[in-house]
Amino acid sequence: MKILVLNCGSSSIKYQLIEMEEGGSVTASDVLDDRLIAKGIVERIGLDRADLTQHADGKEKVTVSKQVANHQEGVQWVLEYLMHPTHGVIKDVSEISAAGHRVAHGGETFKKSTLITPKVMEELRKTVSLAPLHNPANIKGIESISAVLPSIPQVAVFDTSFHQSMPDYAYMYAIPYRYYEEHKIRRYGFHGTSHKFVVEKAAEFYGLDYGSAKIISCHLGNGASIAAVVGGRSVDTSMGYTPVEGLVMGTRAGDIDAGVVFDIMRNEGLTADEASDVFNRQSGLQGISGLSSDMRDLNAAASAGNDRARLALDMFAYRVKKYIGAYAAAMGGVDVILFTGGIGENDFVIRARICKGLEFMGAVLDVRRNDGLRGVDTDLTADGSRVKICLMTTNEELVIARETETIVNCQLSIVN
Amino acid sequence: MKILVLNCGSSSIKYQLIEMEEGGSVTASDVLDDRLIAKGIVERIGLDRADLTQHADGKEKVTVSKQVANHQEGVQWVLEYLMHPTHGVIKDVSEISAAGHRVAHGGETFKKSTLITPKVMEELRKTVSLAPLHNPANIKGIESISAVLPSIPQVAVFDTSFHQSMPDYAYMYAIPYRYYEEHKIRRYGFHGTSHKFVVEKAAEFYGLDYGSAKIISCHLGNGASIAAVVGGRSVDTSMGYTPVEGLVMGTRAGDIDAGVVFDIMRNEGLTADEASDVFNRQSGLQGISGLSSDMRDLNAAASAGNDRARLALDMFAYRVKKYIGAYAAAMGGVDVILFTGGIGENDFVIRARICKGLEFMGAVLDVRRNDGLRGVDTDLTADGSRVKICLMTTNEELVIARETETIVNCQLSIVN
Repeated sequence: MKILVLNCGSSSIKYQLIEMEEGGSVTASDVLDDRLIAKGIVERIGLDRADLTQHADGKEKVTVSKQVANHQEGVQWVLEYLMHPTHGVIKDVSEISAAGHRVAHGGETFKKSTLITPKVMEELRKTVSLAPLHNPANIKGIESISAVLPSIPQVAVFDTSFHQSMPDYAYMYAIPYRYYEEHKIRRYGFHGTSHKFVVEKAAEFYGLDYGSAKIISCHLGNGASIAAVVGGRSVDTSMGYTPVEGLVMGTRAGDIDAGVVFDIMRNEGLTADEASDVFNRQSGLQGISGLSSDMRDLNAAASAGNDRARLALDMFAYRVKKYIGAYAAAMGGVDVILFTGGIGENDFVIRARICKGLEFMGAVLDVRRNDGLRGVDTDLTADGSRVKICLMTTNEELVIARETETIVNCQLSIVN
Repeated sequence: MKILVLNCGSSSIKYQLIEMEEGGSVTASDVLDDRLIAKGIVERIGLDRADLTQHADGKEKVTVSKQVANHQEGVQWVLEYLMHPTHGVIKDVSEISAAGHRVAHGGETFKKSTLITPKVMEELRKTVSLAPLHNPANIKGIESISAVLPSIPQVAVFDTSFHQSMPDYAYMYAIPYRYYEEHKIRRYGFHGTSHKFVVEKAAEFYGLDYGSAKIISCHLGNGASIAAVVGGRSVDTSMGYTPVEGLVMGTRAGDIDAGVVFDIMRNEGLTADEASDVFNRQSGLQGISGLSSDMRDLNAAASAGNDRARLALDMFAYRVKKYIGAYAAAMGGVDVILFTGGIGENDFVIRARICKGLEFMGAVLDVRRNDGLRGVDTDLTADGSRVKICLMTTNEELVIARETETIVNCQLSIVN
């Protein structure tokens, strides 16, 4: 069964075609059985000239350009290149059994990945106000597949749904209650697809009882969030109503004093939209360092003596460390601390700095094993450490493909 | 030596006259040697009719009214009643040796309590933009004493100065660096006078080495903050650039997603000032419960089955618990967790809820000893708990009096 995974942005379509193992994948460790056979991206949709870049299994990477008016034309272009005689990997669209979509925000409605139906689309349109920049593009992606491949089932996989298990005292803000009632303002959390995947994988990796294990998942990338997971259920997470809360990120501020927001608006005469741009796109590692939002640049600059790069790295690591402590307290202890995402999987220096000082809670990093390690699932626990520490690679597209496969198979079995 | 302690608000003067023990008080446990001989408040300064209420040692409580145009007239009225033949405790103003003022914000300039000089006043006026609601009143108080009692030395004791020892990675926000350079936007922290007092007292109470002890101080009142203190130096605290950040408070929101601020402003069409009012005066326990900002009302309502009162209490306790975990991680462990402030000293139910689940870090509350305990310095540590847990009563006015005494004595010894 081949599943097309789509992640649509306002002017882009990221896609992967994944060949699923027969019989379905039951456990997280089956990663190698499900095979990525093509991946690519269409960019600059709706502009003067769009680009499609595709890299298919056993083929050369290809980049082509043409004008693409909208997402539907973009999807058609993707299918054309998946079937391309030279660059493609399939002969006919009928080989694609289903499409899985990454959808940014499921609000409180979508607590699980969901088969697309007219009723679901109706509910999905109601979530647009919660993610005005992302959900409309995700909806366009679904509509495009409906138009171009009307016979295949589609599944929406939400960034937020894994966190819908949070208790109210973790997801509510201490603001007038009517903002929750009228505008659904609460903590939703994001990166749920990734957190769920790596947490399952880590429990299996260590042979833990997933139904009771306490796991802290640190997804550290350009966007970064951390989740507290008890018995497979997210009980707290650092991103909130929007993805700007929590950790220090590439260009996002993370935790802030509301008074800072007001004073910056007053001092600089900014509107809410302009101030939002400051906290989302001009802050974080970029804002502190004034140099770069990329951890690699900052590591290099800090090594060369740049004090603001040093400060940005210190703040990043310190914030993660504090969240680990907070979530251990929230869960009444922790069994596993895992690192994933671009930074979490590759930046061993930051991993070591985060873990330093966690010995009091029984978490000791094996510094030697950590040193130089990149991108491979690995136990990083020192001898005698009660808490396990590990690196777990994430793969959000694979999770989307699997959720899609599971739901489609279930649907087929109901229909038959 | 009698010291007049003043805490001036925009339309009020809170005062205490404290008789200091001869020879100065060296340690925190000397509480009983320094004696409160009168306390009172002038309210509604500048309005049609002001009230003065005073309760002096061995006298009946008295309330009187008259029109008071400004703080200087208010201070004169205070002195009149301190010397009042029936209600007063002194015969002549010359008995007052010094005045100590609570000053809300010392910015980055005032890292310690400071003797008032013309140069200090000049610097103090520069801090007004950081605390536009509080510092102008504090300055008026100092100017009033200068006018009415020009011969006595005055000392400014700052809410912020204890936290000036924080490292940069704890006090900086992950926003464009120029906001720090141009507008001094950073974490300052407040309640420093209280945190310093109770932390010293707790170290002494347990006979710990104050120079190395790791203490988490939970000052829980209508305003609430928590501080991480290593070797007597604050290394992090939950209030930030303003007192709105951190814990859930009576009417303040504490930690929030900046995106929530922007969406509320957009949804409701609010200006920064109006939104600031929402987060400072309509949020917290009051905002969640819709009932009251007072913990006692909420305990009663929650017991009667009110679910939003239950939610407010859950959120309050959960937020404190997370900060305790975060600060333990920040310090690489903790030796003492202490509770102080109106809620911290009196609400044993909340103390128990906060401590539940901290066993993983070696902190176990003696539930029986905690139960029903109010307002007395007490060890609450269960047998076998590695981390000490205690109740330490705070007394900010006494700290102000002592700082004043110390600085004035030091000054005298330099002059002589």
